[in-house]
This record gives sequence, C-alpha cells and structure tokens, in this order.
Amino acid sequence: MDTKKALDFETVELDDRNDALVIIDQTLLPNEFTYLHLKTREEIWEAISELRVRGAPAIGIAAAYGMYLGLKSSAACDFNSFYKELKKIKEYLASSRPTAVNLFWALDRMEACARNNRSRSISEIKELLLKEAEEIKAEDIRVSKSIGEYGLSLLRPNDGLLTHCNAGQLATAKYGTATAPIYLGTERGYNFKVFADETRPLLQGARLTAFELNRAGVDVTLICDNMAATVMANGWVQAVLVGCDRVAANGDTANKIGTLGVAILAKNYGIPFYVCAPTSTIDMDCPTGKDIHIELRKPEEVTDKWYARPMAPKDVNVFNPAFDVTENKFITAIITEYGIARPPFQPSLVEIFSKKATGRMQFSNI
Amino acid sequence: MDTKKALDFETVELDDRNDALVIIDQTLLPNEFTYLHLKTREEIWEAISELRVRGAPAIGIAAAYGMYLGLKSSAACDFNSFYKELKKIKEYLASSRPTAVNLFWALDRMEACARNNRSRSISEIKELLLKEAEEIKAEDIRVSKSIGEYGLSLLRPNDGLLTHCNAGQLATAKYGTATAPIYLGTERGYNFKVFADETRPLLQGARLTAFELNRAGVDVTLICDNMAATVMANGWVQAVLVGCDRVAANGDTANKIGTLGVAILAKNYGIPFYVCAPTSTIDMDCPTGKDIHIELRKPEEVTDKWYARPMAPKDVNVFNPAFDVTENKFITAIITEYGIARPPFQPSLVEIFSKKATGRMQFSNI
Repeated sequence: MDTKKALDFETVELDDRNDALVIIDQTLLPNEFTYLHLKTREEIWEAISELRVRGAPAIGIAAAYGMYLGLKSSAACDFNSFYKELKKIKEYLASSRPTAVNLFWALDRMEACARNNRSRSISEIKELLLKEAEEIKAEDIRVSKSIGEYGLSLLRPNDGLLTHCNAGQLATAKYGTATAPIYLGTERGYNFKVFADETRPLLQGARLTAFELNRAGVDVTLICDNMAATVMANGWVQAVLVGCDRVAANGDTANKIGTLGVAILAKNYGIPFYVCAPTSTIDMDCPTGKDIHIELRKPEEVTDKWYARPMAPKDVNVFNPAFDVTENKFITAIITEYGIARPPFQPSLVEIFSKKATGRMQFSNI
Repeated sequence: MDTKKALDFETVELDDRNDALVIIDQTLLPNEFTYLHLKTREEIWEAISELRVRGAPAIGIAAAYGMYLGLKSSAACDFNSFYKELKKIKEYLASSRPTAVNLFWALDRMEACARNNRSRSISEIKELLLKEAEEIKAEDIRVSKSIGEYGLSLLRPNDGLLTHCNAGQLATAKYGTATAPIYLGTERGYNFKVFADETRPLLQGARLTAFELNRAGVDVTLICDNMAATVMANGWVQAVLVGCDRVAANGDTANKIGTLGVAILAKNYGIPFYVCAPTSTIDMDCPTGKDIHIELRKPEEVTDKWYARPMAPKDVNVFNPAFDVTENKFITAIITEYGIARPPFQPSLVEIFSKKATGRMQFSNI
C-alpha cells in the first residue's frame, strides 16, 4: 500500500502564490475530478452555496481562506476601514450556507484574529489572517489524524468495515473522520474490506466515499442502503464507522439519514458501532437527541434528483428527513480527537472535554 | 373512500373480443399509464421479458392468456398437430423469463388442460384453454382477497403500515398480496397511513407501490429505504406488510433485498412483521433459508440505472443481491390464503397445507 496514493489530493488549499482557493468540484464527482481555482469572494460564495466544497470542516477552512483572499488585496490604510471590509466579507460568506455552524465558527475566528491584532499594520494583519486560516486547516488535520489513531486502536487487520454517507477526506482537510481509521490502517497494511452505503437520497456514499476510498486503493464495495443487513448477516462486517452532525451530552447522535437503521442492525448482529466525532460536534448543552431539530428537505430529492426522468408519481407524499438520531444505547463508542468515550456517555464525554481543556491531544504530535 | 377508485385498473386481462392481451406497460410507470394490446406470441414474449408485466402471479396469467391467444387461430385439425403447436408456444413463452417458477406452473397447467381434453374437438379445447386461463386469473384474485381478509383481521383502523418493494395489484391480477389488506381496509374506511420504501436499486416501491396506492386514494408516503428506522422510531408504524419470493418450511423468507433490514428494525421497535405469502410460494421441501439461492445482479443497476449519468466511480466493486433471507425469528406471522401461520412456523405451515388439501379457503366465496 502506497501511503502517498491514499492521500493524493487536497480537498481545500491555497495555490502556490496564495492567490486562489483550490478545491475539487465535488458536484462533478464521481464522473470528473476537476480542481477549481477560486479567486474572488463571489466564486467562493458560489462554491460553498452549490456544495462544490462540502462537509463542515472543509467549509470552515474554505471560508477562512476566502476571507483572507477577499482582504489580501484590500487598499485600506487604517484598521477601521480594513475591519469594515472584513465585516462585509464575513457577512457575505456567512450567507453562502446559512445553517453551517462551522462556517460561522471559522469566520468568527478570523475576525477575532484581526481584532486581536488591530494595533499591527494592515500588511501584518493580512499575514496573520493567512496564518490563522492555515492553522484552522492544520488543526483539522490533527483532529482527523487523532480520531484515526484512536479509531484504529479498535480495529484489527483484515476487518470488514461498513460506513454510511461521507465523513471522508472530501469533507475535511485530510483523512476525514469516519474514514480516518481506514486511511491510517490502509497506510499500515491493515487490508480492510470496506462496504460503503450509497446513502440515499443524495448518494454521498456512492459519489464521494466510494470514490475517495477507491482512489486511495482501499478495497471498497458499494452497496445500496438496504443491503447493509445482508452484508452483516453474511459475517462480512466487524465494525461500523460513521461520522456525525451533532452529538448530544448523553451520546445520542444526529447523523445522515439512515445511520439509525445501520446502528440497530449492528446491535442485532453484535457488531460494534462507532461514531467518529470531533469534539466541535459534541454539544454538551444539548441534553439528549430529542432536543436536536431534524431538517426536512424537499420531496424532489427523493423523486427526481439524479434521474433521467421522475421515479415516483408526481403528487405522492414524501418524507425526506436529512438526518436521524441514533440513541446512545446503539452506540458502542464515540471516538474523538481527545480519546474514546464509552457508555455511560455523559460522564465519559465530560472526561473527554476535561482532556480538551488541557489542550493536549495524545496524538497531536503526529 | 370509493371502492371503484381503489381498483380502477386491470393488471392483466383479455380484451372484449378475446383477441389481445391487455396489460399496463409497467416500464413506463409512474410517468405514463399506458395499456398495451398484445396480439402475437412475440409481443407477449417481449412484454414478459422486458418486465412490462411483472410479479409472479401476473406473469403466470399473462403466459396462460398468451398460450390461448397463440393457439386461438391454430388451423390444426387433429389433437396431435394442435398439441405440437402448443408445445412449441409453451417452450417459447417459457423462455421469456427463465427463472419465473410461476410462468412454468401456469404453462404446465394450460398444457395439462389440453392433454386432459384430447378427446374433444379442437374448438372445444380452445374454449377450455380460455376458461383455464381465466380460472388461473380468478384463483389468483381469490388468493389475494383471502390473504387480504386474513391480513386485515390483524390490523386496526388508522394503523400506520410500512411495506417494501411491490407486492401489489401490479404484481397480481387484483389486490396484490402485501397490499391486499390495505386495499380491503381502504374499501372499508380503515384510513391506513402507508409508508412505501422506494426499494433500491430497482425502485419498485417508488415506481409501482407508491403509484398504485396513490392512484387508489390510499394515504401513502414515499420514503427512502434508509428512512424506515426513523419512521418507526417516530411511532408511525403499527405493522409491516411484505410479500415474498419464497418461504422455506421453517418460515425463513426470501424476499426483495432490504426486507431483512426492515424485519430487524420492526423487531427492535416491537412492531409486528407480516409476510403475505400465497401457499404457492411456500416450499415445504426447502428446509431453511440457508437452502435458498440468492441471485446476484449486475453492478450497473446500482451505479447507473435510472440516472442521467453514473453515480459511482466506474471501476468500483458493487454487491447487488436481488433478495435477502429474513430469518423466521423476525417474522410475526405468515399470512396465506388458507390462514395465518405463526411461530413455530414448521408445524403451523403444515397445518396451512392440510387446510389447502381440503381445497377450501375460508374466504373463497368472496
């Protein structure tokens, strides 16, 4: 296994001259692998809005770089006019995906960086904003890699693994979250056999996860979501790895629609079910999964999207939730960058956060 | 609820002059509702082969009518030459779907009808073949209706129901199997709320079940297969009804891929899981589900079919089983036209067959 091959692309980066944001146009995957060079804030706004770049961490990094690029050529001579420009760009980029918490977080952090350095020269502030964006990306890589190491400690060579949706490198700066143990294991010759649920209706598993694992030389088999049960019944799955949208304080986990079903199947077959969760997705102020609002999306995603012609009667009712909530009782462990939380999750997650408060990841040096 | 509306189309019938087989072209559903008038054996062969008519019972009826139509204009003057023609047509029609057991069964039955009446005139035999085909259809309706009555006895008004794939009127002469209790209940004002799994990769749930239930005025909601868990978790499902491909003597049931997953979810949520099975699909010579061979189908059905462009990387591995086997422990009851089998299924099914041996369906007069 060639390590380089496993990670032969960057999801989001600046070009060599720090002049353009370079992303893969994920709307063209898996048919075309095309890099976009985005120079203007409008281009970056469009790319985030149209999901050319997607996945919470990747969006945050793209927005941070976008703010830097938008301010790089600023002609402002004093902090106040520079800061006014920054606020305008921030507001503009924040509107590209109004529900993406990570987007706001990254933009807030960039703004704070400028504010905290208001006494410096504008060109110094521009340099610091670039460094801040790069640090946001570097941190994301450290988080993914740490989750990968903890996750890998739970797996054995030749394991069959199943994953749902895309919590992959394409959603982060590198490694992904649910895929991080897979990539690290692959680099170390673990020879995993991975099953990727296609993940209806948006097909992130087929379009993105199967694509990136396949490209990285991982032994990946695509299945329809409704085949997970039979794959498990055949004894082909030794662990399930999924990402998450939001984890409640009691461990209940909101993730892409279909995750709950996979978790129940795994429980039935005695297969460990692991949620890979950066601590940034764990909301200790949210007591349980019941407190998580589930977005309902348009019927057309189920009836029309991707198809050459509609595949359901025109006027039929459709229920299309974007996420579901997996109760903590179906979760074996929650793998974070600060360690592995186990049931009962509430105290275990508190312990994770106390490790985070010390600021030290066990695997932070890697 | 208007009874007539619930059943305003015939899946398979002869035209008024007994000159043509009239079917709905199911390959055009749900976008077009078009009747085909098929006069030649070649047209009928093509319609079966291309799944314009599908579902085991409907195929059997179509083939029986096809044999009649193929022989109707026979110029044979003696039984031997007539029988030779019959054998040729039989062999030809049997090749239209080489794995459809019901197709062979119906053709065998038509052949036996001719053979048993060899002493009669050719025109009399032609009439008897027409009657035999019509009896095959009438029996199928009686079977479906009886399954519907037994099934309905397990349901309550306002129940939420979930079904997978299409075991509907479009697969039979009338009522369907898994849908029979739904149609009968709808006619009687039961006001069911039905969830139809879209049923990847061939989308029979979206294209056919959602179509026929919606057309019949049933309150049906289409969901992706991976949404069944969350629909159950919300408390919206009081029973699951599915059809079957083949039931083993111990109750293990092969049915459309995804059925196993639904059964496990239902068990988890304490929801009864009912298999609607004409006794013709119960194979008492097949001891358990392990003895049922599962057909693996082409990767393109998962990666390309229906789509405007491929939705998975070109060279990715795909596992695409057509069916899965639901172990009897996940099945609450098997609903047949001769009564309801319950665990332990082996003796219960033996009892069903002893009722069948008496030839009397409780609901046969309806």
